[in-house]
Amino acid sequence: MKIDYNEIIYKLKGTKVPKPVSGTLSGHAAGEPCDKHVTTLLKNKYADKVFRQYEYLNYLFTKNPDNIGVEARNALFNSPTLVFLLSRGKNATDKWSIDSPFEEKQNDTADILAVDNGFYEIIDIKTRNISKTTQPPNIISAYKLAQTCAKIIDNKEYDTFDINYIEIDWELEGNELVCKDAHHRKLFKANPSDLYINWAAAMQIQFHVVNLDQSFTGSKEKWAREYLKHFVEQAKKRSKDLIEKFVKPFEKYIK
Amino acid sequence: MKIDYNEIIYKLKGTKVPKPVSGTLSGHAAGEPCDKHVTTLLKNKYADKVFRQYEYLNYLFTKNPDNIGVEARNALFNSPTLVFLLSRGKNATDKWSIDSPFEEKQNDTADILAVDNGFYEIIDIKTRNISKTTQPPNIISAYKLAQTCAKIIDNKEYDTFDINYIEIDWELEGNELVCKDAHHRKLFKANPSDLYINWAAAMQIQFHVVNLDQSFTGSKEKWAREYLKHFVEQAKKRSKDLIEKFVKPFEKYIK
Repeated sequence: MKIDYNEIIYKLKGTKVPKPVSGTLSGHAAGEPCDKHVTTLLKNKYADKVFRQYEYLNYLFTKNPDNIGVEARNALFNSPTLVFLLSRGKNATDKWSIDSPFEEKQNDTADILAVDNGFYEIIDIKTRNISKTTQPPNIISAYKLAQTCAKIIDNKEYDTFDINYIEIDWELEGNELVCKDAHHRKLFKANPSDLYINWAAAMQIQFHVVNLDQSFTGSKEKWAREYLKHFVEQAKKRSKDLIEKFVKPFEKYIK
Repeated sequence: MKIDYNEIIYKLKGTKVPKPVSGTLSGHAAGEPCDKHVTTLLKNKYADKVFRQYEYLNYLFTKNPDNIGVEARNALFNSPTLVFLLSRGKNATDKWSIDSPFEEKQNDTADILAVDNGFYEIIDIKTRNISKTTQPPNIISAYKLAQTCAKIIDNKEYDTFDINYIEIDWELEGNELVCKDAHHRKLFKANPSDLYINWAAAMQIQFHVVNLDQSFTGSKEKWAREYLKHFVEQAKKRSKDLIEKFVKPFEKYIK
């Protein structure tokens, strides 16, 4: 199975979802119905292969009732990198049972997982109110991505997963959010050294999905090494900037 | 006029405010009615001296119609430090008029200002849902506070303003938020070198108001210099930590 993103984008355009009941249309609340709508579209087309992240964990552990405890359950992924990206905490994984399954968590890595034949498509949905000028959203922690790249290299996991972003540009019309446009980009096709890291905002990589370049043509190993080079350079730069901006101007006041 | 914080705290305990209409009781939404309630209590007692920050700016500029433009308006404060803490942007201050006054902004420094005889009490309200274990809230940007301290020293402004925090501990009972307890602390009575700076969370100083020590007995100049010493030390530490945590572990992957 290969997800036909062009078809999903085509289907998204023009769709309408009811406005959320809560008063404000800021951030998370407004995005949620769009996010759920993509999940439904994908589930309708790729039945049994598409999950919310927590649904996949529940599915995987339910299907393998003999794998008990955190080690046995994490082994089901057959991938240290995916364990790092997708699993819940040790304690929670240890205690998981059919009677007390996982629920959705806001800081899960993936909104949607498409799993087929041991290959994982991580899909994250970013919604954008196009009637407003908005800051680029938080995409993923730059540190988490650095750890991911290190694990990719350590375990030679060059073909176990991909990371995709879908941007939904919506506008309020009456009582409905109307999807005016939609965009799909692949993280590992973007030039890693152009990714913007906002150190003060919890080290988040930030971009509008539509603006993500797709010019990188190297291997995933090359991507991982180039990203790590970029991350280390940026961390060094931030380390210096802290001294320039927050130490030097104030030293004269300290006796 | 000196605000009797003990009396305000006494009056707050046991008071009830209607639950906000929006569904969730998280963060900002839940706090707002409590915050407004303190404003009302203070306004009832200290009529004409208590303002929301934007109300004070509107009051000050309205009362001085001949002061036109950003420089003349900022001069009304008679304090570069208070201009830094309380004024809006240059452009907004320039364009202000009686017909288009300021409205409340979420990132204003003060929730409440009590102004008497050229002395400013900045009062910030922090609300806390005591049925939950919550992280200490963002208090003020550590950088903004460093700039404030530098201005205090540069302009010898040792007696023009004070910064106060009020914590309201509330619990939901039926359809009402009930104030179970309340606490008042003064920033410049806290030991500056104990303030926790969360660098990754936009450099915010974070604490639960009730936990703020009040052991500092030195002058405001001494407080400002000790805070700047602490800020510079912490910036240096953060600068080193970035190298230890985000550079060294990843250098081996970079050819």
